[in-house]
Amino acid sequence: MDASSSDIKALMEGIGQKARNAAMRLALASRADKDKALQAAAHRLRERMPAILGANALDMAAARSKGLTPALLDRLKLDESRIEAMAKGLEDVANLADPIGQTMAEWKRPNGLAIQRVRVPLGVIGIIYESRPNVTADAGGLCLKSGNAAILRGGSESINSSGAIMDCLQAGLKEAGLPPDSLQMVPVTDRAAVGVMLTMTEYIDVIVPRGGKSLIERVIAESRIPLFQHLEGLCHTYVDGAADLEMARRIVLNAKMRRTGICGATETLLIDRACAATHLAPLIRDLLDAGCEVRGDDSVQATDPRVVPATDEDWNTEYLDAIISARLVDGVDEAIAFINRFGSQHTDSIVTGDPVRAEKFLNEVNSAIVLHNASTQFADGSEFGMGAEIGIATGKLHARGPVGVEELTTYKYRVLGSGQVRPG
Amino acid sequence: MDASSSDIKALMEGIGQKARNAAMRLALASRADKDKALQAAAHRLRERMPAILGANALDMAAARSKGLTPALLDRLKLDESRIEAMAKGLEDVANLADPIGQTMAEWKRPNGLAIQRVRVPLGVIGIIYESRPNVTADAGGLCLKSGNAAILRGGSESINSSGAIMDCLQAGLKEAGLPPDSLQMVPVTDRAAVGVMLTMTEYIDVIVPRGGKSLIERVIAESRIPLFQHLEGLCHTYVDGAADLEMARRIVLNAKMRRTGICGATETLLIDRACAATHLAPLIRDLLDAGCEVRGDDSVQATDPRVVPATDEDWNTEYLDAIISARLVDGVDEAIAFINRFGSQHTDSIVTGDPVRAEKFLNEVNSAIVLHNASTQFADGSEFGMGAEIGIATGKLHARGPVGVEELTTYKYRVLGSGQVRPG
Repeated sequence: MDASSSDIKALMEGIGQKARNAAMRLALASRADKDKALQAAAHRLRERMPAILGANALDMAAARSKGLTPALLDRLKLDESRIEAMAKGLEDVANLADPIGQTMAEWKRPNGLAIQRVRVPLGVIGIIYESRPNVTADAGGLCLKSGNAAILRGGSESINSSGAIMDCLQAGLKEAGLPPDSLQMVPVTDRAAVGVMLTMTEYIDVIVPRGGKSLIERVIAESRIPLFQHLEGLCHTYVDGAADLEMARRIVLNAKMRRTGICGATETLLIDRACAATHLAPLIRDLLDAGCEVRGDDSVQATDPRVVPATDEDWNTEYLDAIISARLVDGVDEAIAFINRFGSQHTDSIVTGDPVRAEKFLNEVNSAIVLHNASTQFADGSEFGMGAEIGIATGKLHARGPVGVEELTTYKYRVLGSGQVRPG
Repeated sequence: MDASSSDIKALMEGIGQKARNAAMRLALASRADKDKALQAAAHRLRERMPAILGANALDMAAARSKGLTPALLDRLKLDESRIEAMAKGLEDVANLADPIGQTMAEWKRPNGLAIQRVRVPLGVIGIIYESRPNVTADAGGLCLKSGNAAILRGGSESINSSGAIMDCLQAGLKEAGLPPDSLQMVPVTDRAAVGVMLTMTEYIDVIVPRGGKSLIERVIAESRIPLFQHLEGLCHTYVDGAADLEMARRIVLNAKMRRTGICGATETLLIDRACAATHLAPLIRDLLDAGCEVRGDDSVQATDPRVVPATDEDWNTEYLDAIISARLVDGVDEAIAFINRFGSQHTDSIVTGDPVRAEKFLNEVNSAIVLHNASTQFADGSEFGMGAEIGIATGKLHARGPVGVEELTTYKYRVLGSGQVRPG
């Protein structure tokens, strides 16, 4: 190991140790203190808006000179309304119920032991993300509310912006008398820091990667720490033969086109062969007319000359863009089999008037979120009523679907006795 | 890769693919069919007792010629009562409530969407264990009840015994019309099979390692699949200054000596300096008189000439034997700090008549199970009223504490609409 990598290791271990110490104190913090810290941080974000915008201008200038794409520049950019949205987001999180200390279940045993399962924080959460600086406030706020310390490692492009935001969060912690090390930013842009972070099993309890496929794949490959993993949102909408055509048109257009860049956007449209004669053409034309590229099988291509042929790769592709793949299937059974084979176990919807087929689809599609007669774009913590979310988990362990403050907790068992010993 | 390792890879992938296919069917199986399979398997275990004992005799003969220790031979040995206990265990699991399909929560959104969080199986569970052949029936039964397929990899010493037990489980599955591949045994003893298994992320959703420290450490180091991890049970009993002496004596003796080889056995005794004059000597003498070796600090050594000096390593050691380390601490705060530093976050108990100190201990000790005025030996799924358990999890993700049928499930969100699309 050369000097530089041993420096990074020492730096990261120092951050980890401080986070672990802070987490032990934060786990015992009152709701009032945590909410005070969130509200004070929101206040600081508004108060220091000029400084944050100045820091962001430095990041934007560097990013432009590096030739970042307009889409990436837009993600990086802060303005007054985006900073206000971050501040409002922290206030919203303060208003959520405190999950910590909740009794999830309690029961009494015949020997008199009272057993309580109570929510406690996970401990230290590592967040690895790309250039969006707002993740610093959003993810930091959720960790704080749920009593977890967090180590945030943002993209190198946003280091000045994220640093200025982190200063506000730490000021809020100090004002509330909570350990400022509860939220820490990794202060170096060296990619080796991520590698070290992913092996710090002693200091980090769970890693939340947020970003594109290559980031997530690197984290999956290297991490020795459990992940709340969200690989991709390859979501399907299946229009069944018993679907109301007007409802199907509304849902399909919204599921694909409301926002094309979010993980709950539909990427593949499956249409029951039984209703192809009536439903196929209007559904496809709506999409084409809205500016969506449609990649279809032979039947879909036959509906409109603007449809282009789908390749095998299309059924495996999360476009995150105004592109959709579309094909006919033979009823709900083939739809279920197709989704379980090609989907990413994120979110899938059936449009049908037939309750038996709906029930079959909801039971047999093996995804975190399954919907009946609703748009896949509802795959979102706030739409579920959870408040903010740190992401949508497509893994099956611990958290599945939207990850909000409750999903950032674990539990412990408290057993209350009066001198019981175990017989036998 | 030589021919043999590529053969093992192909064998394991075949097992994985069959398990995944079986899991999709088993996830939809009715409670009646699963219970029928469990009861039929119990019947077969009793019916085929002579064949199972014959298979076990082969394993025992091979183990003796390999020179296994008496303790390992005892773990490997089956007799009629142990086979009857396995059969009874399967019947008990059949009598548990079916967790699958349970609605864990449901609510309605202002836009009319109804959201349900329902329990579903995890999918495929990999179980890696050592020589105890009863794990085949116990773990297999819990996986089946919770709708999960399982791939079991037992110790090479028990391959004939486990194979004979697995035959009974698969016969039960067939009688109930469930896919016999729902439960499969890895049929080779080659250690490379474990290595392949730990990388089969496509086919296995979670790995449950059951065995000694070296097995668990290997699994942690190599696994690319999430684990229900149980590294060790370095459990503490803290006798506070406000403890009733007679209660403390009963609890300490039981916590250490009822069974010394289980993970909930106390390994370290902490005694409040405030009650050393009255409590220390009787507590230590009880242990010594019961045949327990006591390794103590200076104060503990001063109580009785039979006490031997504790070394630094003792505070980090899970003895699983009639040995205890013991020392004085300055009150509940030092006890908490000591346990959080040296414990394994498994199970720790405080004996005290002071409710404030008890509450502090229960809140601040960062372990899966914390007890007040009760023996650490209660750390057990059946003592918690969960029925059988597949182990005690000391990690924080997904399952913590006893892992029973509910902990072997995950959930999905069912969202029921009437044509809703997401605005904005």
